[in-house]
Amino acid sequence: MLVSFADLKKEFKRVLLNLSFAEEKAELCAAIFAGNSRDGVYSHGLNRFSAFIDAVKDKEVDVDAEPGFIESHGLIEIWDGHSGAGMYNATKAMDRAIELAKSNGIGCLAMRNTNHWMRGGTYGWQAADAGCIGICFTNTMANMPPWGGKEPRLGNNPLIIAVPNSDGHLVLDMAMTQYSYGKLQQSRMNNEEMEVYAGYDGEGNLTHNPSAIIKSRRALPIGYWKGSGLAFILDVLLTAVTGGKSTAAINSTVKESGVSQFFLCLYKSDYNQILIDEIIRYTKSSAAVEAGGPVRYPGENTLLTRQFNEQHGIPVDEVKWEELVKM
Amino acid sequence: MLVSFADLKKEFKRVLLNLSFAEEKAELCAAIFAGNSRDGVYSHGLNRFSAFIDAVKDKEVDVDAEPGFIESHGLIEIWDGHSGAGMYNATKAMDRAIELAKSNGIGCLAMRNTNHWMRGGTYGWQAADAGCIGICFTNTMANMPPWGGKEPRLGNNPLIIAVPNSDGHLVLDMAMTQYSYGKLQQSRMNNEEMEVYAGYDGEGNLTHNPSAIIKSRRALPIGYWKGSGLAFILDVLLTAVTGGKSTAAINSTVKESGVSQFFLCLYKSDYNQILIDEIIRYTKSSAAVEAGGPVRYPGENTLLTRQFNEQHGIPVDEVKWEELVKM
Repeated sequence: MLVSFADLKKEFKRVLLNLSFAEEKAELCAAIFAGNSRDGVYSHGLNRFSAFIDAVKDKEVDVDAEPGFIESHGLIEIWDGHSGAGMYNATKAMDRAIELAKSNGIGCLAMRNTNHWMRGGTYGWQAADAGCIGICFTNTMANMPPWGGKEPRLGNNPLIIAVPNSDGHLVLDMAMTQYSYGKLQQSRMNNEEMEVYAGYDGEGNLTHNPSAIIKSRRALPIGYWKGSGLAFILDVLLTAVTGGKSTAAINSTVKESGVSQFFLCLYKSDYNQILIDEIIRYTKSSAAVEAGGPVRYPGENTLLTRQFNEQHGIPVDEVKWEELVKM
Repeated sequence: MLVSFADLKKEFKRVLLNLSFAEEKAELCAAIFAGNSRDGVYSHGLNRFSAFIDAVKDKEVDVDAEPGFIESHGLIEIWDGHSGAGMYNATKAMDRAIELAKSNGIGCLAMRNTNHWMRGGTYGWQAADAGCIGICFTNTMANMPPWGGKEPRLGNNPLIIAVPNSDGHLVLDMAMTQYSYGKLQQSRMNNEEMEVYAGYDGEGNLTHNPSAIIKSRRALPIGYWKGSGLAFILDVLLTAVTGGKSTAAINSTVKESGVSQFFLCLYKSDYNQILIDEIIRYTKSSAAVEAGGPVRYPGENTLLTRQFNEQHGIPVDEVKWEELVKM
C-alpha cells in the first residue's frame, strides 16, 4: 500500500511524543524516518522504526539526552552524544560542521557515545542542501570478518561523501560489506540469490546464497582485502580522534550502542558546476552493459525515487504500517 | 639481485641531477623512488623510473616547477602544481597540510595541475611520521568503466588514510580497481590467473584471466557499484574544490598529466593508543581462514617488507637495474 510522507511522519511523531521525546526531537526523528522510506531506503525507514522504539524502551537510547561539546583540538570539536537518539545527534553534529565550514572553509566534528543514525546518506544530503561538501562515517558492531579471518571483527562502517550539484546532489552512501544483513535477509525471504558474490559459505567457498552467509556470518567486504582495510582504518580514525567506543568496545556489550561518528564539511562559494557537469556527461557517455541501461551517478536513483514517491505515495509494508498505527 | 637503499637512491639522484633537477628536488624524488622499492611497491619504484624520465624528457613534467599557493577558502588552501614532479609536489603539499594541522588541528590543501605521485602511501606515511592523521587522494586517467557501463570513464583514484601508531603506522593505500593494470600485466607475464574476479572478458563475463581484461579494458571496481561510486565522487570532490582537471579532462589529452590531488591532516597530541591497541588485538583475534595465516592490518606488510629489505637488500629486476646504471 501507499502512504503520503505527511501521514507517515505524523504517525512516527505521535509515537515519539508518547514516548516523551520533546517536540523538536520528535519532529526531526519522524521526518528522518519518513524521509528514509520516501527516498527508497525502506530498511532504515518504517521497517526499522519498531527496533528503534525497542531501543528507546530498553533505555539504550536516552529520550532526554542532548549531544554536546566536550573539548576541541584546534578546529576539531569533540562532542559526546550522551546516548541520545542517533538521528537527532547526527543532525546536530552535521549542523555544527556546516556552521564551522561556513566560518572557516572547513568544519570537523567527531562524536562519541552516540547511537545508530539509520541511513548515513541523510546527513550527506543535509550538508549538500546547506551548500557544503559533506563527509561522514560511523562505526558499528562487528558484522564482517577481517580479510584472512573467518569471524566478524570489523563493522561495515558506512562512509558518506556528498557534493552539492544543481541537478540533484551527488551523494555516495556505502557500507563496507557487499550487502547488508538486512538485504541478505530480504533476499532469503524472497528465495533469491544475490547478484554478485556476497560472502562465504560454511565450507569457505564464495557464494551468492544469502542463507549460507547468514549462517556462516562471513559477509564479504567490498573488494575483499580492500574493504576490510577501509573498515578497519575508519574505526581506528574514529577511535583515535574521539576516544570513544571502537567496534571492539561496542562488541564487548550485548547491544549496538555508544558508537562513534565523524562529520567533516568543506565550504566554498563556487564548486565549478561546469566542470562537474562535464564529469557527469563523460561518465554517462560509456556504452551501457545492457542496451538502454543507464549509467547512474551516486544519489541519482535516490532523487528519482524521492520524486516518484512524493508524487505517487510511499510504498509501505501493510503489516508494518498497521503496527505503527496501533503503537 | 639485491641492491641497498643507498645505492638505489644514489643512482636515481645522479640521473635526476643530469636532467637538471635541483639538488633538493633530486634528493627527494630519488628517496621516494628508492623508498617505494624498499617498501615492496616495486611497480612504483625502480620499475616506474624510466617512465618518469620519459615524462620529463617529453616536458610533461617541468623540472624547474615549484608548486604554490593560489587562493584560500577559509582554511582550505588551493595550490597549483605547475606541472612539476608529482612526488615533489605531493610531499610539499602534505608538508603544508601537516603544518596547518599542527596550528589549527586540521589542515587541508587541494592541488590542481600536478603529476602522478607514484605510490600514494608515501604521503600517508609522511603524515603519520609527523604525528598527524593523514588522508589524501588523487584522480587519474580513465582506466575503469563506471558501473553499468563497458568503457573506461573513471580513474582508479587511489585513497590513502594513515593513523599514527607506536608499533608501526596504520596506512591504508587503495585504488578503486580490484587490481591495477600493472598487476594484471605482471600476472599475464607469469601466466597466472588473479585470485579473485578482476574484471570482465569480451563476452561480458566476470573473469580471473588478466589477458581477457587487458583486452576488454573492463577492470572491476572494488565492490562493483560501490567502488565505481567512490571513484566518481572523489573525482567530483577534487574538481569541485580545485577547479582543476577531472578524469574527463585528463582523458581529453593524450598523456596522464595535470591531475588533481587532495591532502587533509588532523592533529591531536594523543591518539588513544590503548584503544587502538585494543582494535588491533580484537581484529587479529579472528580465527584465520588458513591455519596459522595471520590477519594483517593495513600497513603491517609494508613495514615488515621495509625492515626485511633494509636488512637483506632490495630485490631489483636485473635488466631494470642495468638500464638505470647506464642512464
